[in-house]
Amino acid sequence: MTFQEKLDKIVKKNKSLICVGLDSDIEKLSAGGKVYPISTPTEQYLSQLSFNKTIIEATHDLVCAYKLNTAFYESIGHEGVNALKDTCDYLVKKYPEIPIIIDAKRADIGNTNKGYVQFVFTYLSGDAVTVHPYLGEEAIRPFLDKKDKGVIILCRTSNPGAGEFQDLLVDGKPLYKVIAENVASKWNANKNCMLVVGATYPDELKEVRKIVGDMTLLVPGIGAQGGDLEATLKAGLNSKKLGLMINSSRGIIFAQNPREEAMKLRNEINKLI
Amino acid sequence: MTFQEKLDKIVKKNKSLICVGLDSDIEKLSAGGKVYPISTPTEQYLSQLSFNKTIIEATHDLVCAYKLNTAFYESIGHEGVNALKDTCDYLVKKYPEIPIIIDAKRADIGNTNKGYVQFVFTYLSGDAVTVHPYLGEEAIRPFLDKKDKGVIILCRTSNPGAGEFQDLLVDGKPLYKVIAENVASKWNANKNCMLVVGATYPDELKEVRKIVGDMTLLVPGIGAQGGDLEATLKAGLNSKKLGLMINSSRGIIFAQNPREEAMKLRNEINKLI
Repeated sequence: MTFQEKLDKIVKKNKSLICVGLDSDIEKLSAGGKVYPISTPTEQYLSQLSFNKTIIEATHDLVCAYKLNTAFYESIGHEGVNALKDTCDYLVKKYPEIPIIIDAKRADIGNTNKGYVQFVFTYLSGDAVTVHPYLGEEAIRPFLDKKDKGVIILCRTSNPGAGEFQDLLVDGKPLYKVIAENVASKWNANKNCMLVVGATYPDELKEVRKIVGDMTLLVPGIGAQGGDLEATLKAGLNSKKLGLMINSSRGIIFAQNPREEAMKLRNEINKLI
Repeated sequence: MTFQEKLDKIVKKNKSLICVGLDSDIEKLSAGGKVYPISTPTEQYLSQLSFNKTIIEATHDLVCAYKLNTAFYESIGHEGVNALKDTCDYLVKKYPEIPIIIDAKRADIGNTNKGYVQFVFTYLSGDAVTVHPYLGEEAIRPFLDKKDKGVIILCRTSNPGAGEFQDLLVDGKPLYKVIAENVASKWNANKNCMLVVGATYPDELKEVRKIVGDMTLLVPGIGAQGGDLEATLKAGLNSKKLGLMINSSRGIIFAQNPREEAMKLRNEINKLI
């Protein structure tokens, strides 16, 4: 089954376009005294894993995907990588129908990427991965060659300074649009490419949607980063009123009641579609 | 002590511009039957660590830096991350004068990068890190804020397809030069920026050198990738006949005699300077 097929199924089953970001920042877990006392690496591992399981149990019937950003796990070293893996294993075993996105933002030269392919798709059992475009298609071929996996390329990112290079004009066209065009017309031979476009830039989202047809887009930036939901949906939905994975991390996982927050966001989206 | 000061000292002491890349690919270690039988993760950990120690002992007086590419360690998961850390710990303890470059090619949005900063500089005790430029200066500020650490930004990479985006013309100027200009004129307030430019592109290396003054450049692509040493030195040395870290990985670490190979390369470079 391809990533897109897996996604389509769960979107339908859970009636949801929400991707929940398991950004289990150990500093926030410590501050909130959420689960365990946290000082040794083993305690940090237990804390992240247990926190993630709690969030998964509270939201699994409300999401279309979980996204795990490697930075929050690597920050504590190999025990964090262990927590990342054990969270993925938990998902694979208990909720195999939910796609796992590894938000690793990797990209190296060709052969070296094989190590990351192994890390993301074999070790972690991820269904999709985020990658940087800068080295070009030839470099990220080892990711693209995985026909059943999703490759989500950074296009227009959600951060305030994203425009420094992404808006530079190439023959009168901003770089992020050139990247969207190349991905849609050349990189996507295996129909496994997607793009990241931030909810903080609805105008750019609209432009990308025009370029890529019905391609699925991963959209961070709703909630804590200030992206507007209605504008995002208006600009980003595809011709089937689908094609978006709207990510929320902090806004859901650190809420007083994560389930309520996820349900609220899911229903708000469904009302606006 | 800043990264540059540390580098200057060891370049002088070891009379070397060679950076040895500890790309301890577990498949190559297995194929060569180098050290241990390798099947369980623990055996893989032991194999990578022991292999790295052997290379370090054979070359520590011939190098100006060691570069560890995270892909080769993450490919085997948390035990690989353990091998990466224990290799760094070994270096810090035994050869604290040699800079450690973590070739992680990371870059996320602002806050999230704090996790990678923690991973690279605290957990691994790295002295420098490689990063992608695509999200802009504002995003990678957490790296740049580390005044004593080196931040090595991908500029013109060594892979055959590097030009897909890096050569796109922005106001008549290729993107890689715009990135070199922005780094040199804006990002480098803490004087801790460097750039990656592949030895496979000596013309581009020459252009980058014109833009960045005496800034240190990390140059991969000599050896297995086919970069020409003489052309690289001619194009890349700065006004002090320094300013390059010439990386060799496979060409040295998987040679019959790594020490001889490292010495040969070091002496060849010194003869050409």
